[in-house]
Formats: sequence, structure tokens, C-alpha cells
Amino acid sequence: MADERVKEFMIEGRNAVIEAFRAGKTIDKLYILDGCKDGPILTIKREASKHDTQIKYVAKERLDQLSETGKHQGVIAQAAAYEYAEVEDILQRAKEKGEPPFVFLLDNIEDPHNLGAIIRTANLAGAHGVIIPKNRAVGLTATVARTSAGALNYTPVAKVTNLAKTIEDLKKEGMWFVCADMGGTTMYDLNLTGSIGLVIGNEGEGVGRLVKEKCDMIASIPMKGDIDSLNASVAAGVLAYEIVRQRLAAK
Amino acid sequence: MADERVKEFMIEGRNAVIEAFRAGKTIDKLYILDGCKDGPILTIKREASKHDTQIKYVAKERLDQLSETGKHQGVIAQAAAYEYAEVEDILQRAKEKGEPPFVFLLDNIEDPHNLGAIIRTANLAGAHGVIIPKNRAVGLTATVARTSAGALNYTPVAKVTNLAKTIEDLKKEGMWFVCADMGGTTMYDLNLTGSIGLVIGNEGEGVGRLVKEKCDMIASIPMKGDIDSLNASVAAGVLAYEIVRQRLAAK
Repeated sequence: MADERVKEFMIEGRNAVIEAFRAGKTIDKLYILDGCKDGPILTIKREASKHDTQIKYVAKERLDQLSETGKHQGVIAQAAAYEYAEVEDILQRAKEKGEPPFVFLLDNIEDPHNLGAIIRTANLAGAHGVIIPKNRAVGLTATVARTSAGALNYTPVAKVTNLAKTIEDLKKEGMWFVCADMGGTTMYDLNLTGSIGLVIGNEGEGVGRLVKEKCDMIASIPMKGDIDSLNASVAAGVLAYEIVRQRLAAK
Repeated sequence: MADERVKEFMIEGRNAVIEAFRAGKTIDKLYILDGCKDGPILTIKREASKHDTQIKYVAKERLDQLSETGKHQGVIAQAAAYEYAEVEDILQRAKEKGEPPFVFLLDNIEDPHNLGAIIRTANLAGAHGVIIPKNRAVGLTATVARTSAGALNYTPVAKVTNLAKTIEDLKKEGMWFVCADMGGTTMYDLNLTGSIGLVIGNEGEGVGRLVKEKCDMIASIPMKGDIDSLNASVAAGVLAYEIVRQRLAAK
């Protein structure tokens, strides 16, 4: 069912990329030949900065490798395989279901398999949506769609410029935010019912400082073992289901 | 630290493979040229059947592709990157820690990333070991070691011929078994304290019928979403941490 939507678009060449921006397509990442600064490339960079699109300056070899047509003219854009939602759409969804909002916020998840598994978990845990940042993090690629096992068809994903700012805005609407981190309160001892945003950190570095400072609670998963941390998608699942358990018990 | 042990061995050629079997190396999988049935190959097949090693009959192109040396002579063995433990070692570990045994049993997990993530979870949830079946399932390859994030250095993994039989044996020692499956009792309503084996099924098919019949309880994770099931390693994490929660609460 999802198949016709699960296509990753690589848009190649100057006119095609400018056209894509003007048509309002979501560009996840832009690859530009390092040192290239003629007119059309400057236009593309202006469009990119208008849309907060991440730009990677790369060598010709890398562009040739990414190119499917062999005619990239110094620029390749990677477009989202899925359309992004707005944060408002996610809140609206909670409202329609008559439930307090339950949202996942991912602070720079880099592995598409993790992102896909987390969107899958968000769907099954009854979350109303997922929010990811524009920079660094992986976007909605074909791999993410596949590992989400269809969840991308149902669970809206919004992309925001500044995750800390989004948290601040949503706090004004009455949401509480809990982030997963070591050294916090054991998750079983926190009240995780009500309107909640669950913040999951990057695979290697965890939750960033600025984002962590905005959170109301820091939840720790009890660790009995010898190594440091769970896989990011497993940690997200364990925390999400503690929220599910508390929500069910509170009914 | 783990690096020197994280090496996947592909053993190529007739003598090398016969030698590996005789030296007691654990062979996870054997690739034999389809239609090949001369003396040395028959010897290898006898050794394989003695050790319940899985054999795959493949075309020459596949062997050439797997070969690193280009001299496979019709046979390539994939040896475990890590040494396997015995089931008794796992129980002994629980005994030494003065804890009721907590063991993961994986019914044919096929994706090495899932196996690695599950071993990582087993370590951090305080399980004493992981039991996997000899056939079909993925073994302790280099990818598994890497995705386990070092947990393979601490958490013993045993490989058994028949998972249902192992469950039967362990039940005689007073262990209880819970398997994850849809249509069971919501996990929050089960008593998961005490000596417990957590059975996780295959990514596509879930827990096999024979194994499921041996289990004392069937636990379901509450599903609120639109799709069918969680990723296998996420499901394992969610269930394992419900066991952790109940164990902590029972103290």
C-alpha cells in the first residue's frame, strides 16, 4: 500500500533543483560541489537558506557517486520520500481523538533503521506524532519508510528548525517534556501521565544540552549490566511503554 | 576492547573446513556447491550433521561471491566470531549472583542488527544469558558483535539444537516461560517475577507453534496503533523491562 509513496528522490542539476524548491518540495539535504559559486548555485543556496535546508559541500567524486543520471552539474538535492506534517497537525490529531497529546521528539537520530523503528513504536504506543530537527538528523528516506513497517502512512512526522524552541512553544500549550538520559530519576518514579513529549537523544551523544535544559524531567532506564546504553530505538520503546503503562493505570 | 574478538571467520576449501570441524570450532553455516558429492564433501556433510550445522546448497556464483580467497573448492564455512556458552553456564551465572535466573530465548531471530540489539538489552536488563537455536537463526557474526555494543563480552550466548526441548528441560529446574505474542494476556496483568525465560519470536512469523506450546504464559504488549507489530528488538526491550519493573517492585 505504501509502496508508491516509498521512493527516495534524488534531484540532479541546477534547474531541476531550483524548480523543486520553487514547487515547495521538501529537500532533506543538498549536496553542492565544493568551491562552486556561480549564479545558479547562489540562487540554490539562497533557496536552501530560506528553507533551512542542510547543505553539504562535497568533492566531485562524491557527487559522481551519488548521481544516478551522471548529469548533476555540481548539485544534487535529496528530497523527502514522504511529506512532512506540521506540529499543529500532530496536536490536532490528539484533539480529534480526545486524548492528551503524546509526542516523540528525536534529537538528531542519525541511523535510518532507528528512525524507522521509532516511528513504528510511536504508532503502536498511540503517540500522535513524531518531531525531528532539520539539521544533521536523518530525514524520511526510503529506508526509514521501509523499517517503519508502514507506520509512516499513519503517524505524522514534523520537521522543525530548532527543537529547543519547539519544546518551549509546546510548554506554553501545557505540555510536559521528559528526556531519556543517564543520571535522571528512575522512570518508574516519575509521573508520566497527561500531555507529554518524550525526547530521545542521538545514538552516540544522547540528548543535547540546550534541549535537555528545556525538559521538565529526566528519566533513566534502570541499567543492571556492564555496558553503557541501550540501542536508541530500544530505549525509545522502553520509555514509551512506561508512558503507556502509566496512562492505562491512570484511567 | 572487544575488537580483537570481533572477527568473522570464513573458512574456505575442503581441508580447511574439515580441519575446523575436527578442531571443535563452532561453524554457524556451511555453504556447499549444489550437486557436489565427492569424498571430502561427504566427510564435511557427515561432520556437519554430527554438529547440527546448517547447510546451504548454493550455485557457483554465490560461492564465488562469498569467497575471499577465490579458492573455495566448492565449500565455505562461516565460523562464529564469538565462542558460544553452554546453557549450564548461564544458570551458573544466576546462581553466583544469588538471583533467580532471567534468560532470553530467541526463536529464530534472522536479522543480525536485531540479535545484537537484543543481546545489548539482555545485558542491561540484568539477564544472565541468551539462548538461540542452531538452525535458520543468525549466529554470532561480526555484525551482531558490533551492534551488541560490547555486550557480547559479558552476556553469554548458548546455541541449542531444539529450543522447545531446552524449555522443557529448564521447566524441570523450576523456570517459568513467557512468550511474546498477540492475543495473549496484557503483560502488566501477568506475574513475571521469579525464575523466568523470555521467549522472543522471529521477525516475520513470531514464536513457533511448538515453542509456544511449551510456554507457561503468553504476554501481549498493548497496541494502540494502525500497524501489526513492533520491531523484534524493541518488543524484546519492552517486555524485558516489564520484567525488570516487576522484579524491582517485588523486592
